[in-house]
Amino acid sequence: MTDAVSLIRAKRDGQTLANDDIRWLFQAYARHEVADEQMSALLMAIFFRGLDRTELRTWTAAMIASGDRLDLSSIPRPTVDKHSTGGVGDKVSLILAPLVAACGAAVPQLSGRGLGHTGGTLDKLESIPGFRTALTPDETVAVLKSAGCVICAAGSGLAPADRRLYALRDVTGTVESIPLIASSIMSKKIAEGTSALVLDVKVGSGAFMTSRDRARELAETMVALGEEHGVRTRALLTRMDVPLGRAVGNAVEVEESVAALRGDGPADLMEVTLALAREMLALAGLAGDIAGDPAAAIADGRALAAYRAMVRAQGGDPDAPLPRAPHTQVLPAPASGWLTGLDALKVGTAAWRLGAGRARKEDDVSAAAGIICLAKPGERVQAGQPLLELRADEPDRFGPALAALDGAAVVSAGEPAAPASAVIEKVGPRA
Amino acid sequence: MTDAVSLIRAKRDGQTLANDDIRWLFQAYARHEVADEQMSALLMAIFFRGLDRTELRTWTAAMIASGDRLDLSSIPRPTVDKHSTGGVGDKVSLILAPLVAACGAAVPQLSGRGLGHTGGTLDKLESIPGFRTALTPDETVAVLKSAGCVICAAGSGLAPADRRLYALRDVTGTVESIPLIASSIMSKKIAEGTSALVLDVKVGSGAFMTSRDRARELAETMVALGEEHGVRTRALLTRMDVPLGRAVGNAVEVEESVAALRGDGPADLMEVTLALAREMLALAGLAGDIAGDPAAAIADGRALAAYRAMVRAQGGDPDAPLPRAPHTQVLPAPASGWLTGLDALKVGTAAWRLGAGRARKEDDVSAAAGIICLAKPGERVQAGQPLLELRADEPDRFGPALAALDGAAVVSAGEPAAPASAVIEKVGPRA
Repeated sequence: MTDAVSLIRAKRDGQTLANDDIRWLFQAYARHEVADEQMSALLMAIFFRGLDRTELRTWTAAMIASGDRLDLSSIPRPTVDKHSTGGVGDKVSLILAPLVAACGAAVPQLSGRGLGHTGGTLDKLESIPGFRTALTPDETVAVLKSAGCVICAAGSGLAPADRRLYALRDVTGTVESIPLIASSIMSKKIAEGTSALVLDVKVGSGAFMTSRDRARELAETMVALGEEHGVRTRALLTRMDVPLGRAVGNAVEVEESVAALRGDGPADLMEVTLALAREMLALAGLAGDIAGDPAAAIADGRALAAYRAMVRAQGGDPDAPLPRAPHTQVLPAPASGWLTGLDALKVGTAAWRLGAGRARKEDDVSAAAGIICLAKPGERVQAGQPLLELRADEPDRFGPALAALDGAAVVSAGEPAAPASAVIEKVGPRA
Repeated sequence: MTDAVSLIRAKRDGQTLANDDIRWLFQAYARHEVADEQMSALLMAIFFRGLDRTELRTWTAAMIASGDRLDLSSIPRPTVDKHSTGGVGDKVSLILAPLVAACGAAVPQLSGRGLGHTGGTLDKLESIPGFRTALTPDETVAVLKSAGCVICAAGSGLAPADRRLYALRDVTGTVESIPLIASSIMSKKIAEGTSALVLDVKVGSGAFMTSRDRARELAETMVALGEEHGVRTRALLTRMDVPLGRAVGNAVEVEESVAALRGDGPADLMEVTLALAREMLALAGLAGDIAGDPAAAIADGRALAAYRAMVRAQGGDPDAPLPRAPHTQVLPAPASGWLTGLDALKVGTAAWRLGAGRARKEDDVSAAAGIICLAKPGERVQAGQPLLELRADEPDRFGPALAALDGAAVVSAGEPAAPASAVIEKVGPRA
């Protein structure tokens, strides 16, 4: 037996919360006996004091217990999912889910919407005419069975405590806490019922984690949480200093994803996608399988076929033309030389201002707005040459977007070193 | 121009809040554009990061600006008030206000109710039949003019932001923060319009500050805040390890206060009361006055006359019998020897459980419940001799109260040293 004030004070003063107290907290919060102002004070205390491994495991389990779990026991294939912490031009899920499905696994990809300057997988897919992201649990399982993969919204029944906590953290300055980020992500992924999970933890200017040490800490925390809850979990730290691929937006990223599934993907995008695919297939026990080579699944058209099957199963028309923005404007190269930098945060913010993201949670996004990177770092450019193509539904979007791009492109006189690998390191469970 | 999330994050990350941002915060909070859950997250961040002197001055000024100020300009005498941080058996205000009034000052004592194990001046005075503590500003000034002192509730118009913040802090584990305590106390005292103020900062087991260093820090913070807002302010640190005087409760403390005004007060109570009276009279510029000797004002009956005038002016009958509890029980001395300790927190908690305090804000208190300390530390006791007399309206109160008293009384074989002075030190403005 405890009460909210004692629990807040205990955490505030650096004590460890008992498992029973954490379970009581979430039950009382669900009954609205713990108020939002008490929860937000506790979240701020956790920002300062953290949660130890036992506290975090119980905290996450309590969030899962607040709702339903998806039942994937009827799926005959091994299930494996991926989660990205969010980046600019990060359309990996759109390629990866059908690709891994084509190699023999089942991919139950419950996704989110764009947040700030980062895009959202659901927003991107909804630019496909007819595509439905709101599926019932039965529909989710049916699509997974028929297409081998499904990309849809996490239903409101899955970890509802996370939904309330996330909304609270967003307005109370308590987003940037590793245990709170880890429990938010992992409660949804564990409730989703996948047997295995690969995490793509982004590091760099365009990521929520700008330091590699913090990103590794987050990755290790999530891997431990997954393993403790019976989900085989690995993480890759990948670079997010520059937009991934060339397209940033919604429909433009769908186009680039389809090109990638046809074998025409940009190098950095394909490096990250294939590395994640190989991790997923290894966790699913399919790495040695004859069908389990993702490069082959792209080359022989199986991955594209799985994508088209998924789009159709979710009500979309894979052959319908995608929305196109009526207005475009280009950003020219400021000088001649080698393009050595293209800041992901600035490009992501510009795409957001063009309409690809939302200013408030309840806003709609523009399907057609976005940015095409006509040059990427490592390429030679001439002064005045178009570097970025901006697309918008209304021309008054360009001013704020161009302002966000101030200093985004860096042109240097000398030839840069070859770009570093997009995959920085792999994080597995501790011995 | 700022927003709540930026402001919370800035404080969370150890930055200093700009004056304009603090003013914006309180204006937006008054308009309910900053939500309680945001304010509580900020309060927790302040618990960890503090407020520097400039922030605290602006924060306090913004709380004062949220409401009205009492206009005491029509009072011909110098005004001076006292505030205590709260203790057990702390009936000093009841004696001090008429005593200092009798010496020529005007004492506008806006007081509070009991909190936890500590008593409240208003609760004590309301045990007097007819006594009204809810006065309008005009009534407050009228009583002050006619009786020289007034003890009433701070009206809802005075620093309303503090009222909301205090209620929030109470349920979110953010009470124990020196800048938040200091701004809460001082905003009400400054808004009350007094020209001078003496603070009684209690230290010890029965006080909210158990460490002398923390108590001194709080005293210095409040003295600086008062002086910055044009109120001459001093503080005394006084001991609160043992109940002050012999009575703990409501009516029982009124009785002891009247006895003290007649010249029959216990030594520790009189030491604290006279020390505070002398500080108040010095700040009011009356120390050298012929009427300005508080001991003389007790001896010649002026202080008691001022008390009776105040009680009458506030609707009370100073000659009416006070409520008396129908049930009593005694706690006997556990051994023979010298009583060397009588824990203030345990005695205060026991009185609270007897009904003298309230379990929830909205509860009533019992006027008659309480404890009489039949022996005080430094006195010789025989095993089995009554040490404490417990009084309650219902006999089932005794069990929980006696449980709280376990170990409260310490009896030792050897004669203890003379008790330390109840006044520990004085805190004035820094040079």
